[in-house]
Amino acid sequence: MSGLRCAVFGASGGIGAALVDALSDRKDVEEVYALMRSPGRKGEKATPLAFDYGDEGSIIAAVERMTGDGPLDLVIVATGLLSRGDEIQPEKTWRSLDAEAMAENFRINTIGPALIGKHVLDHLSREGRPLFAALSARVGSIEDNGLGGWHSYRAAKAALNQIIRNFAIELRRRNKRAVAVALHPGTVETTLSEPFRGNVPDEKLFTPEYAAACLLSVIDGLSAGDSGGFFAWDGKPIPF
Amino acid sequence: MSGLRCAVFGASGGIGAALVDALSDRKDVEEVYALMRSPGRKGEKATPLAFDYGDEGSIIAAVERMTGDGPLDLVIVATGLLSRGDEIQPEKTWRSLDAEAMAENFRINTIGPALIGKHVLDHLSREGRPLFAALSARVGSIEDNGLGGWHSYRAAKAALNQIIRNFAIELRRRNKRAVAVALHPGTVETTLSEPFRGNVPDEKLFTPEYAAACLLSVIDGLSAGDSGGFFAWDGKPIPF
Ligand SMILES: NC(=O)c1ccc[n+]([C@@H]2O[C@H](COP(=O)([O-])OP(=O)(O)OC[C@H]3O[C@@H](n4cnc5c(N)ncnc54)[C@H](OP(=O)(O)O)[C@@H]3O)[C@@H](O)[C@H]2O)c1
Ligand SMILES: NC(=O)c1ccc[n+]([C@@H]2O[C@H](COP(=O)([O-])OP(=O)(O)OC[C@H]3O[C@@H](n4cnc5c(N)ncnc54)[C@H](OP(=O)(O)O)[C@@H]3O)[C@@H](O)[C@H]2O)c1
Repeated sequence: MSGLRCAVFGASGGIGAALVDALSDRKDVEEVYALMRSPGRKGEKATPLAFDYGDEGSIIAAVERMTGDGPLDLVIVATGLLSRGDEIQPEKTWRSLDAEAMAENFRINTIGPALIGKHVLDHLSREGRPLFAALSARVGSIEDNGLGGWHSYRAAKAALNQIIRNFAIELRRRNKRAVAVALHPGTVETTLSEPFRGNVPDEKLFTPEYAAACLLSVIDGLSAGDSGGFFAWDGKPIPF
Repeated sequence: MSGLRCAVFGASGGIGAALVDALSDRKDVEEVYALMRSPGRKGEKATPLAFDYGDEGSIIAAVERMTGDGPLDLVIVATGLLSRGDEIQPEKTWRSLDAEAMAENFRINTIGPALIGKHVLDHLSREGRPLFAALSARVGSIEDNGLGGWHSYRAAKAALNQIIRNFAIELRRRNKRAVAVALHPGTVETTLSEPFRGNVPDEKLFTPEYAAACLLSVIDGLSAGDSGGFFAWDGKPIPF
């Protein structure tokens, strides 16, 4: 049997890069496509490819390039946006809501991953247990929201969870074994979380390597019945 | 005791107009502001005011105008978008996802109501049980999503539910009796639903008048403990 063919979108990110490394180290993995805005050099197993949410054609081209060599077994979307300079900051109150910042949150955290699904889901493998996963965030849970704040990010991740749910439903009609899930990686030491983790105790702050190992172990354990769900780094389901 | 001061955003819509009429008929209601893009003539109790999501200044001006006469007891956001000509249609498959159509769905169904909250929530009454409600839709429930499709509308309503949840949390800190909820009106005979209700049996298709009466009866029954929830026309909670 030939090895797994994997794609990680957002491979330049903290968690995305760790996922590429961890997948590259696995004996059962044959190919890892590392998709990012500014691709670096080819590794032993990892093939860097360019894509940018600002250019849907770049997603189409990347998917054509990957699937020209065969279908994909595992696609992980590890892109995301929480803050950017002064213009995008997680809101502490309704008074800080800004139409442009909200729209940009939806563009990166919801619409981007949706466009990847649009182009890649038709090219998931028909064998084994093909899987599409997007990194969401526990704060995207509406049910679990007890603290408030971070309106745009929370809303965009809730919207992402809904999109993944729709993907799971359509996927099931095409291939009973295929899985689509939303994943929460825990609080991870990356550029994204850096300005906002003041109160997180050390033992709850993960290295990207640890988070990637946890996420892959969760992914390994998922089967068709889990499709459409939302799972944390420890495999526990998160309510919507 | 003086009567209730109410505002309905989207008063030109099927459900919005019926809410304005039903509120105007009530003895306990003193004033109904009917906010819409193209305001008509003043009624006995209803005062038409202009606003458009394309112009945040118009929301600010409308809120200034209303609250110049006193705080608001009841604010209902009854705007929404499901389809528009050929360019925006609810999706049947991931293949139909379109970045622009998705963005416009978020702009009208999520960001617009969020901007209303931004400007109006500081002006809710400190007396009685002030309430902010936004019309969401059962198909916005992620948990309840068993059919799939309608990706953009579903995702934008899930995002709206998350925004309302955040509003409820912040509101509670300022006024323990204030309520913010998302409401599902049922399937209602309006321009919005008209192209899409082929399979809905007659007894499940509501007139705008009936939907408005149901929604106001649900609203009458809500108390602080319900804040942050998502309720259907019959008062039953809907999971997120
Ligand atoms: N870190 C945490 O504690 C935490 C917690 C919960 C959830 N998450 C989620 O986990 C995921 C990964 O986050 P991270 O912590 O690894 O963040 P990160 O290090 O900031 O990585 C973000 C990634 O998204 C990519 N990206 C942003 N905008 C893009 C665009 N327009 N087109 C293409 N790619 C774009 C970035 O590419 P560039 O390098 O080119 O900018 C980068 O690869 C995100 O979805 C995040 O919401 C993280
Ligand atoms: N009808 C149903 O079966 C049903 C089911 C579930 C949920 N809902 C929800 O109920 C709410 C009301 O729907 P409806 O059926 O009454 O729809 P409708 O008759 O089409 O009314 C929609 C309203 O939204 C307003 N609107 C749209 N774009 C706007 C913008 N850019 N700025 C300001 N206002 C804008 C419209 O104003 P104009 O008149 O100026 O266009 C109109 O007042 C929506 O949130 C809908 O999603 C309806």
